[in-house]
Amino acid sequence: MQPVMSAREIMEMLDREFPQIHAGGRVYAIDSVSTGQAVLRLTANELHLRPGGTISGPSMMALADLAAYVVILAHIGPVALAVTTSLNINFLRKPGPGDLLCTCRLLKLGKRLAVVECSLAGEGKEDLVAHATATYSVPPR
Amino acid sequence: MQPVMSAREIMEMLDREFPQIHAGGRVYAIDSVSTGQAVLRLTANELHLRPGGTISGPSMMALADLAAYVVILAHIGPVALAVTTSLNINFLRKPGPGDLLCTCRLLKLGKRLAVVECSLAGEGKEDLVAHATATYSVPPR
Amino acid sequence: MQPVMSAREIMEMLDREFPQIHAGGRVYAIDSVSTGQAVLRLTANELHLRPGGTISGPSMMALADLAAYVVILAHIGPVALAVTTSLNINFLRKPGPGDLLCTCRLLKLGKRLAVVECSLAGEGKEDLVAHATATYSVPPR
Amino acid sequence: MQPVMSAREIMEMLDREFPQIHAGGRVYAIDSVSTGQAVLRLTANELHLRPGGTISGPSMMALADLAAYVVILAHIGPVALAVTTSLNINFLRKPGPGDLLCTCRLLKLGKRLAVVECSLAGEGKEDLVAHATATYSVPPR
Repeated sequence: MQPVMSAREIMEMLDREFPQIHAGGRVYAIDSVSTGQAVLRLTANELHLRPGGTISGPSMMALADLAAYVVILAHIGPVALAVTTSLNINFLRKPGPGDLLCTCRLLKLGKRLAVVECSLAGEGKEDLVAHATATYSVPPR
Repeated sequence: MQPVMSAREIMEMLDREFPQIHAGGRVYAIDSVSTGQAVLRLTANELHLRPGGTISGPSMMALADLAAYVVILAHIGPVALAVTTSLNINFLRKPGPGDLLCTCRLLKLGKRLAVVECSLAGEGKEDLVAHATATYSVPPR
Repeated sequence: MQPVMSAREIMEMLDREFPQIHAGGRVYAIDSVSTGQAVLRLTANELHLRPGGTISGPSMMALADLAAYVVILAHIGPVALAVTTSLNINFLRKPGPGDLLCTCRLLKLGKRLAVVECSLAGEGKEDLVAHATATYSVPPR
Repeated sequence: MQPVMSAREIMEMLDREFPQIHAGGRVYAIDSVSTGQAVLRLTANELHLRPGGTISGPSMMALADLAAYVVILAHIGPVALAVTTSLNINFLRKPGPGDLLCTCRLLKLGKRLAVVECSLAGEGKEDLVAHATATYSVPPR
């Protein structure tokens, strides 16, 4: 299960096909793509914060959803149209200040469904702030 | 399980305590609050749309999370601090143009946990575009 | 979305294809099948009980999974092979003594995926003891 | 987060408090307990099998639920009463013949809630057959 797109190729595709993800400011970066895995970074702005400076739940859900899409795209290539079919998230701790990293792991890349596990933690932190699993419908390949 | 806050009182509280939810434009309205239930409305703007004019998955997750919070608040009152502990969502169909309504039903309002079921559908439509369940940690009352 | 199999036809098919569900005793019955809906009944025996006479979590998960299968089968017919791809359940209250009913509603019956919502309650009770959503992969039709 | 009970102590407690889990035959064993982790083993019998010799979905859900309980018990001790509040599972591949191992990891052990991640795979296999997250309500400590 080797990646067929690099982090830069994926970001260029996102910029072209989904410019809306940057509508509130350019906050997402792809830190890395590797075998069965991808790491996304959220540099939160005031749209993502809640009182006390903590990152909102919806911002974490959006990050997990995008990160799952990125790890799938990395392994099926740019022609593919993948659509989220479900997402389940557990919020574990309040995120502190600083960037949030989402590490995604492909649990399955099937003919029709892909299942991804996402671990969200502050940069340099061990304890997860949230954990998600997302399911995508992928086109026959 | 009678509501103890009206739709207007809840919106005033949200405006005061969570002004960030309006940061990208005032898109949420509380259509109604009744016994064990609340209906929220999303009037999507360009921040919420995807190519083809459809509402994005993260926008539906944010709507479900907010709607679940509203139905809980309506029944436990303004002093309470409730925090999302988990959310599970199934995306069923692409939403068409127009406002999106999220109807929330309290499945349980316990001493420590509240569980809410959310049905999302376009205004006047029968078929759901998404279905979610959310769990909130609620303070001892 | 009319059912194409009756409760009796489905139970005969289950008896033939999945005799294992009766291995610990004949505890499941199909109470009804109607448009987009099915109701299953669990008459628990000692395999399903926990201390205090309450029905175990795994018994409720098995009931929800079977009930979701039944409502899908009812609407796609006996030739179809459907496989659970995910299940999410919230346990809400301890079930009291007596039969447990699981009411399933088809939220979506797509070309590749079916999504079902399940409400579990004691017979004659209003309050749910558990609420589940299950996703099945269905064969192209 | 060191365990305070050994695998043997936990199994003795299960035998005493939940003899029902062995009602259909003694199929569960605790392979190991370590920091924030536990491994359970299911030696399936005819109650757990489906046509073709594959382990049923409900058997995997029951295994994940029990394994999550074991890892929590291991870290909070025998006095505690923990109750499943939710479980989410994705079925990834059909299990082959042989024992099934469920590796559980504590994502959070909070004052009121514990969240556990479960990876299910055949013994000696790398590919997961299922992946679950379970939430337990834990008593104040």
